Amino acid sequence: MKTINELFGIRYPIVQGGMVWCSGWELASAVSNAGGLGLIGAGSMKPDVLRLHIKKCKAATDKPFGVNVPLLYSQTAEVLQIIVDEGVKIVFTSAGNPQTWTAWLKERGMVVVHVVASVKFAQKAQTAGVHAIVAEGFEAGGHNGFDETTTLTLIPQVVQKVSIPVIAAGGIATGSGMLAAFALGAKGVQIGSRFVASVEASAHERFKQKILELDDTATKLTLKSLVPVRLVKNAFMLRAETAINSGASKEELSQMLGKGRAKLGMFDGDLDEGELEIGQIAGLINEILPVETIINQMIAEFNTEKEKLLNLYF
Amino acid sequence: MKTINELFGIRYPIVQGGMVWCSGWELASAVSNAGGLGLIGAGSMKPDVLRLHIKKCKAATDKPFGVNVPLLYSQTAEVLQIIVDEGVKIVFTSAGNPQTWTAWLKERGMVVVHVVASVKFAQKAQTAGVHAIVAEGFEAGGHNGFDETTTLTLIPQVVQKVSIPVIAAGGIATGSGMLAAFALGAKGVQIGSRFVASVEASAHERFKQKILELDDTATKLTLKSLVPVRLVKNAFMLRAETAINSGASKEELSQMLGKGRAKLGMFDGDLDEGELEIGQIAGLINEILPVETIINQMIAEFNTEKEKLLNLYF
Repeated sequence: MKTINELFGIRYPIVQGGMVWCSGWELASAVSNAGGLGLIGAGSMKPDVLRLHIKKCKAATDKPFGVNVPLLYSQTAEVLQIIVDEGVKIVFTSAGNPQTWTAWLKERGMVVVHVVASVKFAQKAQTAGVHAIVAEGFEAGGHNGFDETTTLTLIPQVVQKVSIPVIAAGGIATGSGMLAAFALGAKGVQIGSRFVASVEASAHERFKQKILELDDTATKLTLKSLVPVRLVKNAFMLRAETAINSGASKEELSQMLGKGRAKLGMFDGDLDEGELEIGQIAGLINEILPVETIINQMIAEFNTEKEKLLNLYF
Repeated sequence: MKTINELFGIRYPIVQGGMVWCSGWELASAVSNAGGLGLIGAGSMKPDVLRLHIKKCKAATDKPFGVNVPLLYSQTAEVLQIIVDEGVKIVFTSAGNPQTWTAWLKERGMVVVHVVASVKFAQKAQTAGVHAIVAEGFEAGGHNGFDETTTLTLIPQVVQKVSIPVIAAGGIATGSGMLAAFALGAKGVQIGSRFVASVEASAHERFKQKILELDDTATKLTLKSLVPVRLVKNAFMLRAETAINSGASKEELSQMLGKGRAKLGMFDGDLDEGELEIGQIAGLINEILPVETIINQMIAEFNTEKEKLLNLYF
């Protein structure tokens, strides 16, 4: 089995999560330049905007980077063609059936990774022929699975049932978290929240500052009858929860949500009325740092904590 | 800081969760005899039954063991007095305010540990004077916190904010899981589900066999408007979920639940109409084993996986 580093051509097995409104070319290229794998988050980009981000990313780094593509979006075919045309070699697909596009992408020489939240979908992705899997737990920020399986329990169960490399996502923001993921059998980690609170993320400065104030109970998985999404408990989110607890229908919730709330919160910085997607690990994030510092600290902590485990004998 | 092993006088930092209907004297003494810390689960016992279990446990082991006491129960004062009178030296309290009983217990020479599910309550428990904390994540079986924080994200956040030892609970059933918990800063682990599927647990044989069939998505945290509880998605649980999704009131749910469903499911073995409390890690459990084998396998795997981490250099 190829290591994650060999598969992507990177130095550290750290993948930056492709996130709506937060991960443009600046974040992706910074992560790749620092030795990880940067991903442009196509989910919040129109095709021509994505093409521009890819071009800028190529200009900003000579290292490998990829694009995250939610397969349920209507412009998937156009988006994937752009990625191929622009010479990107790595695609992370999510939110859809990996069977639909994996063969097409592999025929064009792409490395394909699919994001899942359960053992069943991990097995389906392997059958579809992907090179690796991201297994993402309940604690992750933003859109999430329906089964609510946590990273600690999901990773070993997925690792046991597939033979391709598993990248752990959800709840990891430090070298210790990375070490825990490897202890569970993961071959790499995907990091979202920690990179949102970086200098290079395209998140609004007010959202970045907000992350530093959050504690362990500041987020909740909500709007489950639409698509489950982990949000900061702000005014909008609490209003939605009240409606849900009063038995609001899917249609009422959809109307309440409206369009553009993710952009409003994360990109425009409306902390009350926007959707603020962030993970449960946000409580550990106390500083906005450059990406290179984040990655170097993570690797240093991984190595230090690994040495500490050595001294444990039972 | 004392190690968990020094605090309890045990060989391995493995605590068996005190569980209703599953952890009587037979399980607790087996865990203590195998080098861990066994706990009698007082939550499902009348005071005189508890006294009998303590007496039998003392006869079955000369090693330290403890009792888990949910503080919200009406007979707490009587139960704690029995524990003191019988010479038990270790109490794990849960589901209540640690301020109420900790000083009283410590004056009587007891080691006191409190179970929490958030940073705030960990700090409150430390202020109350407990010797250690169990921090239990969302993936744990049975009764759970309201904040839904997962073990992977809860442990490092609690460890950062308290100075007493933290025991990780929720989602741990193997040596790898134990290693992950230690990587996150835990000083010990509390194991529930894995010990339910042991020869010595007092769970009904049908419930034990049922655990072996479960996958990663087989449980769900439900009945949140009463007390959140993680249950197997059986006929009763699915009926409760349907009622919840139809906007059932707290009173209606309480009536639907009735009394005695936990006993009906876990002790009497009614797999359809009883409550079956088990964690998300149940999907990893494929065999009913004697406690000693479980603990020995866990320690052996911990050591093997620890050695594997050593070979990772980044």
